[in-house]
Amino acid sequence: MSFSAMPVLSPGSRLGVVAPSGPFDRERFEKGLAVLAGRYRVEVAPEAGETFRYLAGSDESRARALQRCLDDAELGTIIAARGGYGAMRLLESLTFKRAATVVGFSDITALHLAWQARRWRSVHGPVVTQLGTQPADVVARTFEVLEGRRVAPLMGADTVTPGQAEGALVGGNLSLLASLVGTRFMPSLSGAVLLLEDVGERPYRIDRMWTHLKLAGALEGVVGVVLGEFTDCEEKGASFTSAQLLSELTGTLGVPVLAGLPIGHGAVNQPVVLGARVRLDASNKRLECLEGLA
Amino acid sequence: MSFSAMPVLSPGSRLGVVAPSGPFDRERFEKGLAVLAGRYRVEVAPEAGETFRYLAGSDESRARALQRCLDDAELGTIIAARGGYGAMRLLESLTFKRAATVVGFSDITALHLAWQARRWRSVHGPVVTQLGTQPADVVARTFEVLEGRRVAPLMGADTVTPGQAEGALVGGNLSLLASLVGTRFMPSLSGAVLLLEDVGERPYRIDRMWTHLKLAGALEGVVGVVLGEFTDCEEKGASFTSAQLLSELTGTLGVPVLAGLPIGHGAVNQPVVLGARVRLDASNKRLECLEGLA
Repeated sequence: MSFSAMPVLSPGSRLGVVAPSGPFDRERFEKGLAVLAGRYRVEVAPEAGETFRYLAGSDESRARALQRCLDDAELGTIIAARGGYGAMRLLESLTFKRAATVVGFSDITALHLAWQARRWRSVHGPVVTQLGTQPADVVARTFEVLEGRRVAPLMGADTVTPGQAEGALVGGNLSLLASLVGTRFMPSLSGAVLLLEDVGERPYRIDRMWTHLKLAGALEGVVGVVLGEFTDCEEKGASFTSAQLLSELTGTLGVPVLAGLPIGHGAVNQPVVLGARVRLDASNKRLECLEGLA
Repeated sequence: MSFSAMPVLSPGSRLGVVAPSGPFDRERFEKGLAVLAGRYRVEVAPEAGETFRYLAGSDESRARALQRCLDDAELGTIIAARGGYGAMRLLESLTFKRAATVVGFSDITALHLAWQARRWRSVHGPVVTQLGTQPADVVARTFEVLEGRRVAPLMGADTVTPGQAEGALVGGNLSLLASLVGTRFMPSLSGAVLLLEDVGERPYRIDRMWTHLKLAGALEGVVGVVLGEFTDCEEKGASFTSAQLLSELTGTLGVPVLAGLPIGHGAVNQPVVLGARVRLDASNKRLECLEGLA
């Protein structure tokens, strides 16, 4: 299960910005854009300011912007303005002449999974609206990742199931993973180290999504699990935590599981390359990146 | 696509009560039980009072109670105490020696869909905790349905897409339908009139679940759609309603769609037989039941 190497950036390269999911806060967006513009030639799709209900414009306009970037042979990397919801509505309309690197997380997982189904790597990392408020080391690491370098290991907070595993890092947002089960955009997770994070999902919903993946056989062959942040996922007044629940659910797989990676909707969203080989050492709380984008 | 006739009740028959999903309010439960006990010999599984987090006891104890009813050759009908969440956690462990009629809605859709996948009919209708507060005509109709009679048509409130269709009524709760996509418990919806209802789902989530079904090809061959209540599904301050969204989403199928059926989490939850043939006349806002349970 080997994933293709993908286009990387150099300082001064063109970087496309699109909004395939939800509308975003302009001020946070500009702040993040300034961070990127300090290093790359940032080109924001003109459609990116649109709003339609909970979407950043109509499907047609969001798809047009993304497709134009995908069709631009000189534009290798595309970053999402924000997550939210909506990228999966575009999946059926996208066409691919060549591989482009996509960057983002949360709802952008719809694209990551479609990329993984094609055996393409992509970058699970900050969206533009996040970049202005992330610590300097996240920004530095994001540049390193986008420029194809192999980056330092990440440390998790809690060993759920000890042990070591090696495989391609796949997954992303749990809700999106569950929402693509049974579609042609769902990658095989066999042989993979599964990354999961989420936001605003009550424990029973986390349970339901995990149970869905299990009943569908989607978790068969997973060799390890790394859990990022599960932000605002607690039930008010409950005698248990979502971390406890996730430990129990993932524990049934009998593979190494490491929780508390600084990945997701928290204050720190460290970038990682999906589709790249990683070595998970859950006993020592360490996720080592064996490959970069290229 | 024909569904098996199923066991029916007579006045005085044994009726099993189980809690395969969430814990329930004892007072509401007793009220509903009294309604049933006025007509049938109600037997409540001793496990039904248990609680574990958001579940009515452990998987083992919920499955044991349900399996015991399924294995009881003299017990043809089983009604759920309440929905909530948890029935899908039991699906893999259930075994079937013979067909039993299951009654309930919401999370009980996990069982309904598994029944539909086996081509068994079941009753989408009030759970026990609902029965004490439903109007008299719902109770009367529930008895008629459980006793195998063909019941009067139901009227919807809004024609979304006019036209007529005929097929087996399948579906239930949208969240559960989306949560079983890609599993062996998901029935084919081809040739079916699809019933959907839900509670507490924000519009983008309704969109995501529908889009999931669509991307999975699960909606192919659906001949008509009937929408029950979508209770507490509005986005605060939004310029659009969930009804509008559902009209747009279902409208893309190009089949007759009728909305506002008195089915679901509202004050009136009229029972219908899933798997039974229905004639949908969306133009005249009418859902006619062509078959009963037997």
